[in-house]
Amino acid sequence: MVSDANDYLERTFLSPASMRAIHLTQKWMEDAGLRTWVDQMGNVHGRVDGVNANTEALLVGSHLDTVVDAGKFDGSLGIVSAISALKVMHVHGKLQKLRRPVEVIAFCEEEGVRFQTTFLGSGAIAGILPATTLEISDKRNVTIKEVLKENSIEATEESFLQLKYDAKSVWGYVELHIEQGPVLEQVGFPLGVVKGIAGQTRLKVTVRGSQGHAGTVPMSMRQDPMVAAAEQIVLIESLCKHPEEYLSYDGHCSDSSIKSLSSSLVCTVGEISTWPSASNVIPGQVTYTVDIRAIDDLGREAVIYDLSNRIYQICDKRSVSCLIEHKHDAGAVICDPELSSQLKSAAYSALKKMEGDIQDEVPTLMSGAGHDAMAMSRLTKVGMLFVRCRGGISHSPQEDVLDDDVWAAGLAFLSFLENL
Amino acid sequence: MVSDANDYLERTFLSPASMRAIHLTQKWMEDAGLRTWVDQMGNVHGRVDGVNANTEALLVGSHLDTVVDAGKFDGSLGIVSAISALKVMHVHGKLQKLRRPVEVIAFCEEEGVRFQTTFLGSGAIAGILPATTLEISDKRNVTIKEVLKENSIEATEESFLQLKYDAKSVWGYVELHIEQGPVLEQVGFPLGVVKGIAGQTRLKVTVRGSQGHAGTVPMSMRQDPMVAAAEQIVLIESLCKHPEEYLSYDGHCSDSSIKSLSSSLVCTVGEISTWPSASNVIPGQVTYTVDIRAIDDLGREAVIYDLSNRIYQICDKRSVSCLIEHKHDAGAVICDPELSSQLKSAAYSALKKMEGDIQDEVPTLMSGAGHDAMAMSRLTKVGMLFVRCRGGISHSPQEDVLDDDVWAAGLAFLSFLENL
Repeated sequence: MVSDANDYLERTFLSPASMRAIHLTQKWMEDAGLRTWVDQMGNVHGRVDGVNANTEALLVGSHLDTVVDAGKFDGSLGIVSAISALKVMHVHGKLQKLRRPVEVIAFCEEEGVRFQTTFLGSGAIAGILPATTLEISDKRNVTIKEVLKENSIEATEESFLQLKYDAKSVWGYVELHIEQGPVLEQVGFPLGVVKGIAGQTRLKVTVRGSQGHAGTVPMSMRQDPMVAAAEQIVLIESLCKHPEEYLSYDGHCSDSSIKSLSSSLVCTVGEISTWPSASNVIPGQVTYTVDIRAIDDLGREAVIYDLSNRIYQICDKRSVSCLIEHKHDAGAVICDPELSSQLKSAAYSALKKMEGDIQDEVPTLMSGAGHDAMAMSRLTKVGMLFVRCRGGISHSPQEDVLDDDVWAAGLAFLSFLENL
Repeated sequence: MVSDANDYLERTFLSPASMRAIHLTQKWMEDAGLRTWVDQMGNVHGRVDGVNANTEALLVGSHLDTVVDAGKFDGSLGIVSAISALKVMHVHGKLQKLRRPVEVIAFCEEEGVRFQTTFLGSGAIAGILPATTLEISDKRNVTIKEVLKENSIEATEESFLQLKYDAKSVWGYVELHIEQGPVLEQVGFPLGVVKGIAGQTRLKVTVRGSQGHAGTVPMSMRQDPMVAAAEQIVLIESLCKHPEEYLSYDGHCSDSSIKSLSSSLVCTVGEISTWPSASNVIPGQVTYTVDIRAIDDLGREAVIYDLSNRIYQICDKRSVSCLIEHKHDAGAVICDPELSSQLKSAAYSALKKMEGDIQDEVPTLMSGAGHDAMAMSRLTKVGMLFVRCRGGISHSPQEDVLDDDVWAAGLAFLSFLENL
């Protein structure tokens, strides 16, 4: 285990363990017959030109970094599967026959743990990060630029901006990743094709009421923000479970949006806190977060509009005040239909090789989680394959993937590359 | 302002400011013609024997300590009013004519801030604290015994237990305190008689569900403890607002209990936290506190029984698990009817002196907050007067009492003592 911690997996941006992982990955790429380099952000590249070095290249990637106390498949599986598939081709002398250049990129950073900014690797390649990114600092006040320098990478604003790939030189981007959710396990399939990555909005809701002594203010005289927040959280779940019951009458949302919402909308209240947070004090203020994701951007906006109105109504009714802040908004990314269709065929062929006849179609599913493909979609068309993981668990040492499913992932990559 | 902080009021048990407050209070007591001493817990006593030193004594008191960022009336007003009334009697030569000994006690500790244990002063006098109390330590691991020693008080287990007053030597205990609630302000009366101090139960509810990625687990596959907790919090409010609608059908509760509950029951969720507390993670666990108070102990127990059942039902329905822990239980204290009647007459006479004719009766109300009288009720009969405070606000620098109401409090004490 390449980790900064002894007892659990932790590999954050350019940490000592990350540097070891970079060098190990580079070595594996070399073993697979790829020409390799580490760029000025710490991304590891391994490239083979194939029959025509000047054609648009296929980029394949995922991330090397992890969360704290992570699972070992998140990110790494996509990198290792791609390198393995290319190594098989190398061994069989097929590497130089590839119809277009193929470049594996092991992105240095996706999780946002150390600098609270995600997609530092793929974002730099896609050119969506400003040059000021280098000045972002971690909790110990060390900037990205300084961390790079500590690792003998002299980054300047200019060199940083030059990391961006020329869109004309790129054909597409493909990423394989564990699902991090329970859908493939539920349908009983090792692989699935991702139709798109959900758009996401993060709200921070602050409810302010009248702070008071838990023993002395009669129930009828309270303006308790905790109960208002609780009523809102129950509503949020209900609306996100059955958006059709809430939105259909208002005309905010088309029928197709509602249909797409009903199958993809997820809403989560993950953080909540009260002030002053004492068991014997009626809170003066309650703050909570709402994470809202859907594959349909207009639908997500309609949900937020409707939800906000209903949150305000609850606050009005209870004579408390509400403030709803948008802390983060990201549009959905729709995967390229052609790439998706090729990935589907490749997955089908891999499973057929392993299991013989396959009755069902390879499932198509949404990604609720963000991935490097999200950043890369700003540069080129993207496609993604998901691999089943046990119990849908990720970001946890309990994260697990069956050996057979790892095998299927490698075979699918191989089939995809052979038919490129 | 006698405070340990520069910008706000903070006087915790035996802090430097508390020691200054002790000496100042002792000086005021001496000025009022009282014989004074500081006992081995740091309580300040001021006593006058009146015509018969051997008769049972009236004890009068409240606490000198404060919460952090406190108001200046909480506790202190009761001590200052009593000393002022006695000083008036002293000036008029009436002190020695008192029919029984009167002893003012400024309790060293009531709030429980420093040692997370309340009633350290009155509890010692009432004899309800075990000798091991001396070994309780604060956040810096300093024990009560050590703090006492730092202040030149050599306490032993034996001397601690000897602080307990002999019940036979005591006639009763009277305390004046700010209401810390909004009732007197609402009914427009400066003073009110306390009929009793509510019993209190503090529950800690832990809801455990299935932790997951906010983006990848469909709504229909979630076991989200946050929404379960929210539904429970809404229920708790509803049940405590209208206990008659929940309890009457079940036969747990007599009609009189329900009537008394409907007017006195208060329930508060003051603390809540999620684990792992990230906006993009469906919590695996949510914990919250419920503070439940009522003047009727059986009624409170019936509420807790019913509430617990309904909380478990919600958990069952949502396939999450619930654990309900009783962290604290204290029975209600009913004030002595005779003492209350004397206090009512005294309050009436004080208000009449100030305002002329009084149309309405002096209101009677419940105390939802705990007071030293709660501990003292284990030693002797108790009576309490409440003084109106602005907006019902306490434990805050915004705590305020009208000058006229302070005056009324002093006059009421004077009238009470004169008619003893």
